[in-house]
Amino acid sequence: MKHFISTQEWKKEELDKLLDLTAEMKKDPEEYNNSLLGKSLCMFFYNPSTRTRNSTEVAAYQLGMHPAFNSIKDAWIGYQSESIKDTSIVLSKYYDAIGIRIFPVSVKWKYKEGHRILNEFARYSEVPIINFEDDQFHPLQALTDIFTIREKKIHTEGKKIVISWCYHPKPLPFSVPNSILLMSSRYGMDITLTHPKEYRLDDEIISVAENNITQSGGTLSFSHDIDEAYQDADVVYIKSWGARPYYGDAKNEKQLRIPYRESWRIKANHLEKTEKDSVLMHCLPIRRNVVADDEVIDGKHSIVYKQAENRLYTAKAVLYNLLKN
Amino acid sequence: MKHFISTQEWKKEELDKLLDLTAEMKKDPEEYNNSLLGKSLCMFFYNPSTRTRNSTEVAAYQLGMHPAFNSIKDAWIGYQSESIKDTSIVLSKYYDAIGIRIFPVSVKWKYKEGHRILNEFARYSEVPIINFEDDQFHPLQALTDIFTIREKKIHTEGKKIVISWCYHPKPLPFSVPNSILLMSSRYGMDITLTHPKEYRLDDEIISVAENNITQSGGTLSFSHDIDEAYQDADVVYIKSWGARPYYGDAKNEKQLRIPYRESWRIKANHLEKTEKDSVLMHCLPIRRNVVADDEVIDGKHSIVYKQAENRLYTAKAVLYNLLKN
Amino acid sequence: MKHFISTQEWKKEELDKLLDLTAEMKKDPEEYNNSLLGKSLCMFFYNPSTRTRNSTEVAAYQLGMHPAFNSIKDAWIGYQSESIKDTSIVLSKYYDAIGIRIFPVSVKWKYKEGHRILNEFARYSEVPIINFEDDQFHPLQALTDIFTIREKKIHTEGKKIVISWCYHPKPLPFSVPNSILLMSSRYGMDITLTHPKEYRLDDEIISVAENNITQSGGTLSFSHDIDEAYQDADVVYIKSWGARPYYGDAKNEKQLRIPYRESWRIKANHLEKTEKDSVLMHCLPIRRNVVADDEVIDGKHSIVYKQAENRLYTAKAVLYNLLKN
Repeated sequence: MKHFISTQEWKKEELDKLLDLTAEMKKDPEEYNNSLLGKSLCMFFYNPSTRTRNSTEVAAYQLGMHPAFNSIKDAWIGYQSESIKDTSIVLSKYYDAIGIRIFPVSVKWKYKEGHRILNEFARYSEVPIINFEDDQFHPLQALTDIFTIREKKIHTEGKKIVISWCYHPKPLPFSVPNSILLMSSRYGMDITLTHPKEYRLDDEIISVAENNITQSGGTLSFSHDIDEAYQDADVVYIKSWGARPYYGDAKNEKQLRIPYRESWRIKANHLEKTEKDSVLMHCLPIRRNVVADDEVIDGKHSIVYKQAENRLYTAKAVLYNLLKN
Repeated sequence: MKHFISTQEWKKEELDKLLDLTAEMKKDPEEYNNSLLGKSLCMFFYNPSTRTRNSTEVAAYQLGMHPAFNSIKDAWIGYQSESIKDTSIVLSKYYDAIGIRIFPVSVKWKYKEGHRILNEFARYSEVPIINFEDDQFHPLQALTDIFTIREKKIHTEGKKIVISWCYHPKPLPFSVPNSILLMSSRYGMDITLTHPKEYRLDDEIISVAENNITQSGGTLSFSHDIDEAYQDADVVYIKSWGARPYYGDAKNEKQLRIPYRESWRIKANHLEKTEKDSVLMHCLPIRRNVVADDEVIDGKHSIVYKQAENRLYTAKAVLYNLLKN
Repeated sequence: MKHFISTQEWKKEELDKLLDLTAEMKKDPEEYNNSLLGKSLCMFFYNPSTRTRNSTEVAAYQLGMHPAFNSIKDAWIGYQSESIKDTSIVLSKYYDAIGIRIFPVSVKWKYKEGHRILNEFARYSEVPIINFEDDQFHPLQALTDIFTIREKKIHTEGKKIVISWCYHPKPLPFSVPNSILLMSSRYGMDITLTHPKEYRLDDEIISVAENNITQSGGTLSFSHDIDEAYQDADVVYIKSWGARPYYGDAKNEKQLRIPYRESWRIKANHLEKTEKDSVLMHCLPIRRNVVADDEVIDGKHSIVYKQAENRLYTAKAVLYNLLKN
């Protein structure tokens, strides 16, 4: 039995297989109708969700499953009222798979605690655990991102991806930047990580990415100059995140980010130096005209809705892979 | 592609077709079982619901669909965290139809803002938007109301309907009175709108109703005398609503309504002057012995439970019409 | 039409039938797949739930039904905004069965008010009402408990069950101890009820249990000495509950329970005097190392996860029995 908690725990060939299956799910959805009939998916959310919840719910239904949305507001689940162990064992008696979302706010910003909880669920569960985004990773998103890049006929190997910080009024979690960094470094991309100097991602994650590129043939460089970073990019992946040293301290972190409000708000001219057919990505939701201008989100480079749509097919592929094999 | 946001946007022949389909759905429900198999319905609620949520959820299931209840408490949807545009486009990638409820309280009582939001959803959605009650209209209710009137063998043309204000401790929205006014005026009824003088409905809505009757052959009159108004009525539709000039100002509006607490509380004797076989309608929920006496709600004229039950069949007809044609 | 609000309202032969059906559901689940296809189950929760909600939801789906989870946070249901009568009649127009959970906190600790509300739902509903745990009873749990005891090859007749109070920082409801007391006394067990002297269960319930044993051949004794009580037990059922005279007064009740924190925390040595193959039961959730030690919950006597798992099969049996007969 496998879990889908981080892409890093999956072999390259296994990820390739998931990407191929995603393509099949999109091309010929009806072939897989009811392939998981009679099975049930527990969807447990410590935090709100739009894309993850709805794409996975529809994916499960189309495969014949019953998806059961559980909100922390309506359940005695984990962490406080009941041990993770007990919750996990019990839910896995009823369900065939369990998806869980847990954000930093639900673990009082104790660093990596959400991810630890997911792994604790996995330790005791008798069925696969699926990460619906924890405080470290969002593997369903990153899998979709690589799928969407390749769907745009961008062979990842040797292509330049800029993972670009951008301004947001609040310090957001690391799950999305961590995950796209890990995945793009598995897929041989030339990665430029650009952000103000205080916004360096966790060294541990960077170290894993550096190990990934030695195997995939990619490269990894850093830049604090957004204009330089975007030069000749094939893929620009924009996403805001918080400053690691101020984790959980939103009040003081605020002072840090204010100077970047204008300079790191993504505008149309930022994309001018990229390749002509470059793509602009974001996982959504996005605050328009704060994080990035309408001209960017609605512009010719943007494939943000493709990303969101593809979440449906990736979710189906992951469910099918975990439950049918 | 059509939306179901207001009955006014639907032609008379289209509404007739919906009413006929409702009758079929009720008479021969099994014929339509699984007719929409494989399709999914997003049910998004900014506000609580009993009838609309549950009738539509069961309707969708009986047609073979997967209904997915989303509460604003558990989703990043629209208005604040994400633009309506982005939410609408994304959800319409996963679902085959999207139902939305949004009350005045969710738009801070900005007049007509809820209805505007529904129209904005419709502008961007790639699938039909269904109004699950906004701050202006409740078309699923009004469609059911006309169906229920006709089911009681009351041919609407030339029959007298009294749309009667009644007391309630709080100023309620206009969606239900607006909607039954618009529908009864499409269906050639002789309408008497009765309420204390300060409770006149929006002139714009009244003007649309007046235009409707010129085409349907109905009539529209006003009365501030509840006893006079009920005289010879075939249908008495009771419903409380707020005073237009105090919209969003519950505190001051309260002074206005207090004097009407007894005189506009509906009692058995109010119905004595109506036709012998007249029907008493209310959309529910209703505060018993505050808005109307038990003798009224449970009395021989009352068809309030028929109305509620018929919501199931109307919901099925609307879903089928939007998704099968 | 029958309801499932308290096991006491069901005849012994009917309960036997439910237990037999539970065994069949567990042994040969596929035989009953889709046996209730097209039917819908309203699941209405005034309070949070993990086991009851999820076991019943999956049970309903596996039988072909559509389960619709409704939280009080998202519905206008009962008690405040709408009369129980109206809610019950209306929901029963859409659904084939209605499950309801209501805890003391939702009725402001008015004694037995939750149970009264369930009976009021039943009075007006046109479909079966299922008790998802009220402030007096949890029949789905107690049915599962007897099933699980018998599954462990413990013929209930003449076997000793200790229903044992244990420490918990808060005064918990009586539903679980009441229900296992009523069921074990129906099934001819030799019951020892052990608790600190202030924690006597409601005399009315005890009186019903005493009447049960005159018919079932069981016995009922009381003990305030936990060590003595556990002697030679075949089944130890641990569960905390509040002191009846302090019902709803958690603040003052706290003083009462503090002295019992250590002496009534269940430890491994408590089980040493029981039969060698005795079983330790708890309905979960449980606060580990507060109510009982890890060594107890994870020890060789413990069948707590079996209990939890069996909730699925009992739920199926109850749904099938209510809706298929």
